Amino acid sequence: MRKTDKPTTTVGKATNIAWHEGEISRDDRARVLGHQGCTLWLTGLSGSGKSTIGVALEHALIQRGTLAYRLDGDNVRHGLNANLGFSAEDREENIRRVGEVARLFADAGVITISSFISPYQRDRDQVRTVHEESGVPFLEVFIDTPLEVCESRDPKGLYKKARAGEIKGFTGIDDPYEAPVRPEVHIKTDKQTIEESADQLVEALLAHGVIKGC
Amino acid sequence: MRKTDKPTTTVGKATNIAWHEGEISRDDRARVLGHQGCTLWLTGLSGSGKSTIGVALEHALIQRGTLAYRLDGDNVRHGLNANLGFSAEDREENIRRVGEVARLFADAGVITISSFISPYQRDRDQVRTVHEESGVPFLEVFIDTPLEVCESRDPKGLYKKARAGEIKGFTGIDDPYEAPVRPEVHIKTDKQTIEESADQLVEALLAHGVIKGC
Repeated sequence: MRKTDKPTTTVGKATNIAWHEGEISRDDRARVLGHQGCTLWLTGLSGSGKSTIGVALEHALIQRGTLAYRLDGDNVRHGLNANLGFSAEDREENIRRVGEVARLFADAGVITISSFISPYQRDRDQVRTVHEESGVPFLEVFIDTPLEVCESRDPKGLYKKARAGEIKGFTGIDDPYEAPVRPEVHIKTDKQTIEESADQLVEALLAHGVIKGC
Repeated sequence: MRKTDKPTTTVGKATNIAWHEGEISRDDRARVLGHQGCTLWLTGLSGSGKSTIGVALEHALIQRGTLAYRLDGDNVRHGLNANLGFSAEDREENIRRVGEVARLFADAGVITISSFISPYQRDRDQVRTVHEESGVPFLEVFIDTPLEVCESRDPKGLYKKARAGEIKGFTGIDDPYEAPVRPEVHIKTDKQTIEESADQLVEALLAHGVIKGC
């Protein structure tokens, strides 16, 4: 295979992105997108509102012309992590893999909205570390909803099963939820609407320089 | 948490993307990006030129203002798949996970350039299936380089070790490489330059409607 001096592609579209040898950088992709990539790591009890807030935020970002993507149980547990169960070891591996995938997405320039209970500080810190080691922005977002509120919602009927002993090791019932110590964003869902929560996250992305104001 | 009628965000940027309830679709993200997502699955022997062509293609796409991202051993084996070795089982799981991650990336709207030897048709077909089941475009790209050329390059000295028996089960030496039966793109690296190969892939993306001409 010869390497020539001819332009890389003859069907190219004029852009202000300079050709250079070697690896494409995050800055190159940020110029294409008009924003940085970032992982927003939403953590909270089952039923706390992580997915609902994630969906609202994704809408808000897409509406701004910002590329956002959600990672949650729906698109991960049936695919990438379909070979994992709910043992302590598998739950740790579930979070580890999602953390690595979020890092790749954020490295690619995507604003990645990860919604997993992720009850242990140690696991969340590990995800933070892999981001920091790659220089990829990571914001820990505590979706703070009182247990009794989550349990009264019980959208999937899981608390009822946990209370009946049909599910063992359920976070908040017979397994601990370790609240984030110093989350970048703290959302108290009993004091703010879904839209206010999404706004708060957009403001956090602005404050951290991930996206720019108009 | 109340749901109100107020706009999702007060710091919004005007775009032509209509707000709607429910999930953000691939089409919504395609409107932000100006192109579809897609997985280009580069398969070929060690030393065949997968990564080199992948880098050239990534440059060509970024230069066009298209969001592209490469998945390869460098950013996957040390992270997501750091807990996998090189047993037959682990190699299969390596490809399975990468296939699932590529599907998520392509679903997010990214043109994903995956470069793995992936020697078995069965594994590649499985990756194709998970894409097709999600309605995500998948193009199998055969990087076709004669074994003797790959072995003469031997950039990592792996063929030498395999011939000496220091590495067992090395693709092309003592483990088979199953050439794609009906790849969407067939690149014969002994007959075309790196740039021509990248061009051929850009043309394939145009032909499949993933990106648009100028």
